[in-house]
Amino acid sequence: MPPADASLLSVETIRAAAFRLAGLAVRTPLLESPLLNAKLGGRLLAKAECLQRTGSFKFRGAYNAVSMTGGRPVVAFSSGNHAQGVAHAAELLKIRATIVMPADAPRTKIENTRAYGANVVLYDRRTEDREAIGARIALEEEAVLVRPYDDPFVMAGQGTVGLEIVEDCQARSIVPDAVLAPASGGGLIAGVATAVLDSFPSAEVMTAEPAGFDDHARSLAAGERLSHDGGVTICDALMSPRPGELTFPINRRLLAGGKVADEAAVRQAMRVAFQYLKLVVEPGGAVALASVLSGGVPIHGRTIVVVLSGGNVDAGLFAEILGQEADT
Amino acid sequence: MPPADASLLSVETIRAAAFRLAGLAVRTPLLESPLLNAKLGGRLLAKAECLQRTGSFKFRGAYNAVSMTGGRPVVAFSSGNHAQGVAHAAELLKIRATIVMPADAPRTKIENTRAYGANVVLYDRRTEDREAIGARIALEEEAVLVRPYDDPFVMAGQGTVGLEIVEDCQARSIVPDAVLAPASGGGLIAGVATAVLDSFPSAEVMTAEPAGFDDHARSLAAGERLSHDGGVTICDALMSPRPGELTFPINRRLLAGGKVADEAAVRQAMRVAFQYLKLVVEPGGAVALASVLSGGVPIHGRTIVVVLSGGNVDAGLFAEILGQEADT
Repeated sequence: MPPADASLLSVETIRAAAFRLAGLAVRTPLLESPLLNAKLGGRLLAKAECLQRTGSFKFRGAYNAVSMTGGRPVVAFSSGNHAQGVAHAAELLKIRATIVMPADAPRTKIENTRAYGANVVLYDRRTEDREAIGARIALEEEAVLVRPYDDPFVMAGQGTVGLEIVEDCQARSIVPDAVLAPASGGGLIAGVATAVLDSFPSAEVMTAEPAGFDDHARSLAAGERLSHDGGVTICDALMSPRPGELTFPINRRLLAGGKVADEAAVRQAMRVAFQYLKLVVEPGGAVALASVLSGGVPIHGRTIVVVLSGGNVDAGLFAEILGQEADT
Repeated sequence: MPPADASLLSVETIRAAAFRLAGLAVRTPLLESPLLNAKLGGRLLAKAECLQRTGSFKFRGAYNAVSMTGGRPVVAFSSGNHAQGVAHAAELLKIRATIVMPADAPRTKIENTRAYGANVVLYDRRTEDREAIGARIALEEEAVLVRPYDDPFVMAGQGTVGLEIVEDCQARSIVPDAVLAPASGGGLIAGVATAVLDSFPSAEVMTAEPAGFDDHARSLAAGERLSHDGGVTICDALMSPRPGELTFPINRRLLAGGKVADEAAVRQAMRVAFQYLKLVVEPGGAVALASVLSGGVPIHGRTIVVVLSGGNVDAGLFAEILGQEADT
């Protein structure tokens, strides 16, 4: 249903989001390393969204959505980057925010969310229902729920990542062969694909996911929303059970498929980002780069853009990953 | 001698360098962290030159200088970032480059310099004279020596860092109270001061140096070029014995003084850059940030810009520093 999709998300809604975010979101650079390019025999461009406010692209969609609530309080569920994005967006807009987080979420993420001025409500994952808690808060405070991906304003905000990729490629006379972004609920890649394909219709736009959490790869292949098998992943930011209701029809129409990278490839990608790009990338943020480096996407003689979507990783884990001496 | 200085380095020569570097040097972002600002009670802006080509600001000055040799081969002495900057600049300009490096320089730095296509000549620090080796190469190849700081084109190239700081501050209606950059020979700070003070004459522009290598702080206080005491420092990029002959008269005229940070503060600054800015900063690149965080420059209620000048640090050392759990 292209008309219905276009009303949800289009280059126009992304441009409107870019206008709202101007001067607030970091205009993150599209970086490359001549030494890495020489090793790969191709051109790899990295959109450094780990440098975004709150340490991930989530700020873009969150700000765009929170700015459209007409000043009403907001509520969100998240144990991670969406929590910080919504909390900081609400802080900037002087709107009351309540974030419902599992009590066993990483302490720094809870502390950061509070530091952005949000009211954090903790719940017990095993005994409490976060939906019920959220519904109660929404009722009591007349708060608007800000969903992490199934929201047209969130998708449009994430699409500004794609708009900037297009602008930077055009400024350097680059036509990318492929563009990859990590996918959890699919909001980032829906926005990126919408913006990129409008200017570069021949580009292959693809999701990247960690092994075991390949619901987009499977759903795109099957043409319907399928769940992943789950299990354990180092990519804590990419654990949504299946593609979004609103994001999937868009992604099914626009994407060329989904790639998967295993944990060893993700760790290797984090080391490459450290060594060649001087960036701190969290595991979930590195999965698109991992897909390329591990051979899932041919790069020899081609130009590929990867989104490094976030950098919120604990020092201990990062140090452990750097300590693994592997050749790049 | 202001007229002599102005002919060596001016906003005009910096603008000319910016023109040559356009589309080649990374337009590095001026980043800040709302959480870090809240902790500091002030505004800290970080110019992320670790994201520059070759991993440090050195590429800017090297490219500007190499582009002015009229196609003649170039030769440089360096064990570190200047080597990579000159090698890559020569590669881009299709000019033959010979880099004279100590045989005991870090292997990755030698390998990277070779990977940029340079001819690397190794010498024994204890038994050979690098000046004599360089003079022989200059004679044999009719090569031009590219000095790391005492060169007007190098200083002008480094000054483009300052020009970008000015542009980004003006775009956000910021007037910085102070601007700090690491100093070894003093070329970066000379360029930055020239650009920044032209637009923000009230800003205090200062050097930052590691403890024991405080030749700028001492020389600026004394009004004459003094050497440091030396010793051991983690900041391998900042080991020049004394301020440059050409840089010092400029810096003496323009700078408000020099700050010093000890090794604990440098390590802490690297952790803060990791945690709040998602940047990989090498020890020498973190010393301006370290000076602010350790209280050497008051930031409460003020706006301070620090240059994070490079990110070429080994994974092992970075992991070790992250592993030290210190409060920020």
